Amino acid sequence: MAGITTPERIGTELAGLIPFDRVLTDPEALARYSHDRADWADFTAPLAVVLVVTADEVSAVVRFAAALGIRIVPRGAGTGLSGGANAMANSIVLSLELMTDVIELNTAERYAVVQAGLINDDLRAAAATVGLWYPPDPASSAISTIGGNAATNAGGICCVKYGVTRDYVLGMQVVLADGDIVQLGRRTAKGATGYDLTGLMVGSEGTLGVITQLTVKLLPLGGRDERAIVGYFPSLDSAGEAVAAVARAGIIPAALELVDRTCLYAVSEWQGVDLPQNADTLLLAKIDEPGARGDELSLQLADIFRAAGGADVQQSSDSDETDRLFQARRLAYPALERLGPVLTEDICVPRAAVPMMLASIQESAARHVVVIANIAHAGDGNLHPLIIAPEGDLAVKARAKLAFDEIIARCLQLGGTVTGEHGVGLLKLPGAAVELGDRVGRMHHAVKDSLDPEHLFNPGKAFS
Amino acid sequence: MAGITTPERIGTELAGLIPFDRVLTDPEALARYSHDRADWADFTAPLAVVLVVTADEVSAVVRFAAALGIRIVPRGAGTGLSGGANAMANSIVLSLELMTDVIELNTAERYAVVQAGLINDDLRAAAATVGLWYPPDPASSAISTIGGNAATNAGGICCVKYGVTRDYVLGMQVVLADGDIVQLGRRTAKGATGYDLTGLMVGSEGTLGVITQLTVKLLPLGGRDERAIVGYFPSLDSAGEAVAAVARAGIIPAALELVDRTCLYAVSEWQGVDLPQNADTLLLAKIDEPGARGDELSLQLADIFRAAGGADVQQSSDSDETDRLFQARRLAYPALERLGPVLTEDICVPRAAVPMMLASIQESAARHVVVIANIAHAGDGNLHPLIIAPEGDLAVKARAKLAFDEIIARCLQLGGTVTGEHGVGLLKLPGAAVELGDRVGRMHHAVKDSLDPEHLFNPGKAFS
Repeated sequence: MAGITTPERIGTELAGLIPFDRVLTDPEALARYSHDRADWADFTAPLAVVLVVTADEVSAVVRFAAALGIRIVPRGAGTGLSGGANAMANSIVLSLELMTDVIELNTAERYAVVQAGLINDDLRAAAATVGLWYPPDPASSAISTIGGNAATNAGGICCVKYGVTRDYVLGMQVVLADGDIVQLGRRTAKGATGYDLTGLMVGSEGTLGVITQLTVKLLPLGGRDERAIVGYFPSLDSAGEAVAAVARAGIIPAALELVDRTCLYAVSEWQGVDLPQNADTLLLAKIDEPGARGDELSLQLADIFRAAGGADVQQSSDSDETDRLFQARRLAYPALERLGPVLTEDICVPRAAVPMMLASIQESAARHVVVIANIAHAGDGNLHPLIIAPEGDLAVKARAKLAFDEIIARCLQLGGTVTGEHGVGLLKLPGAAVELGDRVGRMHHAVKDSLDPEHLFNPGKAFS
Repeated sequence: MAGITTPERIGTELAGLIPFDRVLTDPEALARYSHDRADWADFTAPLAVVLVVTADEVSAVVRFAAALGIRIVPRGAGTGLSGGANAMANSIVLSLELMTDVIELNTAERYAVVQAGLINDDLRAAAATVGLWYPPDPASSAISTIGGNAATNAGGICCVKYGVTRDYVLGMQVVLADGDIVQLGRRTAKGATGYDLTGLMVGSEGTLGVITQLTVKLLPLGGRDERAIVGYFPSLDSAGEAVAAVARAGIIPAALELVDRTCLYAVSEWQGVDLPQNADTLLLAKIDEPGARGDELSLQLADIFRAAGGADVQQSSDSDETDRLFQARRLAYPALERLGPVLTEDICVPRAAVPMMLASIQESAARHVVVIANIAHAGDGNLHPLIIAPEGDLAVKARAKLAFDEIIARCLQLGGTVTGEHGVGLLKLPGAAVELGDRVGRMHHAVKDSLDPEHLFNPGKAFS
């Protein structure tokens, strides 16, 4: 079988294992599945795309690929921003997008068992029907899958208070490199049996196995009343001071987001909305404690905003009004995309270093003559510098890459991490190598070799 | 050097690396450090005990032991209940009890960097001086170390709401099997760089490396008002129904503990306190939401207790009174120890299965003619059956072991896990083997081999 190297022949062989309509080998499909949203990173069309519907099918494809020395690139919805699902030479893309079943919703134990291809928002909606809530809310929640969220340990806006995907994955079904299907983790509230292999799989970016099913912890849906508090600041520094003051006051808001001047003006121009005078940076917070306590915290946050120099500070407990106040955050990314392709950064620095990091980003923008806008999960120190490079302008693209690398280097200097919530994929490989260092890098290789000795799963991703 | 096999000669050799007063080889010390609190499990006196004070010393001892093929048994305070720190033939016990420094308390980022030998309560006290709080509260918090808590992924009473040790460990310094010292994890609020090796170390029971320093997440100390709600139930079933009703109501209390009839009567007799008529099972809950919301939840919980058949339901927001109400929980274990040595079980079942599991435990007690009392983190489904076996009575001890094994088997039948928070150590090896299954067991071996190829660290613990 070693001679099978063309999509046509791979397709013919796979058709013995998987119904032919779920084995894609036409050039258009191969192109479509050849990369996630990180088309800045390298990618190559795969030999085939297989749309699996059961763990047994995943197992069959894994055994088939292992026998032929073909690599497996697992993929959820392909919404990743670091290239974790970018295809490579001699690979099969294994798409879990059709595995969308909610298998169990357990209200007594507060968990859901779902297939890996279920969309985040669909899990949220299913949980809500039984009075439960799945908190992790990446910006991609309407289009990204739970399996992909787990593979990259996705974050989101409410993570500042409620934690990230890792904090909610209790267990999972995984297909290993020899095709064996195992169940990891537990469904009980606590557990200390053996190594936390579930936690090891979370964030491993498809390099250790294919996650086919997940058991996720849920919280009660009720008992929260959302209030929004927003304010415009005359400078990044003053907004940074407000973020630090919130932490000093011992308040953990349910969201604390920052939108910088470039984003604000892009949204304002697009939507025809006037900005207040001297508006430079917008902070948006949510408080979700119910009743009087929520009122009190909301007022306290508004006072902190004003004391730090915030103007036009508004509060609302009405959900439509809250949505309106958060509009600038929601529209920032699409507003920028109107200006050109966006290279999305994702760094996390100590909260206190947020103003310094933002200032350094602006210096990089000036030095390399590129436009960099910023949205940030400020309460977590998780920044998303958005580097805009007009389509086809290779010179700008080269300068953007220099700025990208400089931002990562500065983030590490400030005690940060090169990826807060998007994962390493391909784009962050050099930064991750610096952050982890040689010895911890070798630990990664040892763990990879122990669970995937032939480097079948997504080789070259997540660490170098 | 291969001929060095006596404590005297090992001691002489080690004295070149570690000041002599911190290398213990006298028989009394070797006996004292030969086991943790699981003296039901096997143990053998080590060749030497080394009281290290720096990671460099740990590294030196690790290299020394590796060169000689001597095993390393890492140990915090030796308060473990599963035998994880029990010494074995040809071993050095590496005690971190003197490494108690608080290295950094960061209020802006809300974390602490501490040495592994710091006592849990001492971390809590240090954090409180700067308005911060370390939630995980194992019953051993006054005597157990943070390093030991991390090695076993310790739980506690408030975990039902605030999570276990794993949820608070952001990063750590670890000495690896080749003596290299590495820093894992991060200090930022979020991070997705590489595999979660920090999480892999948590709960690995000293089998992958020696944790010398930890970075732990802290929460704001303020903003909580503790209220106690306690009630006596006429049966395990009615108490179990109350626990299920709390979950159905979408309430996550800050504690939900159960004390059974045997414990209640042991405490009552010891302290000379009368119990209400028909008192069979005590439930103790805490609510810590502040203000009116806390009052409301406290009343709601009391109503749920009464509706399920609870009598003498009392509520208090006074901290002394709260302590008094929780006295029966606090004194249950020492009250039972007065009756004889206690073999402590630690299983976790789905919340809904708590009454079934408790009934099954009583059947095992009757079948094997042993006394089994129960304290339980009922809100988590985490039960601690306490099997009492009078000193020196080998027949009872043998029957206790049969009951112990039967409880584990039943827990697995009910979808539970063989250890909720104490770890596998030695006592739970057979149960863990069944729970993990052969294929996941082999994954454990592969990971162990990848990071500790010579099986230097605590071999034979945590998985079989």
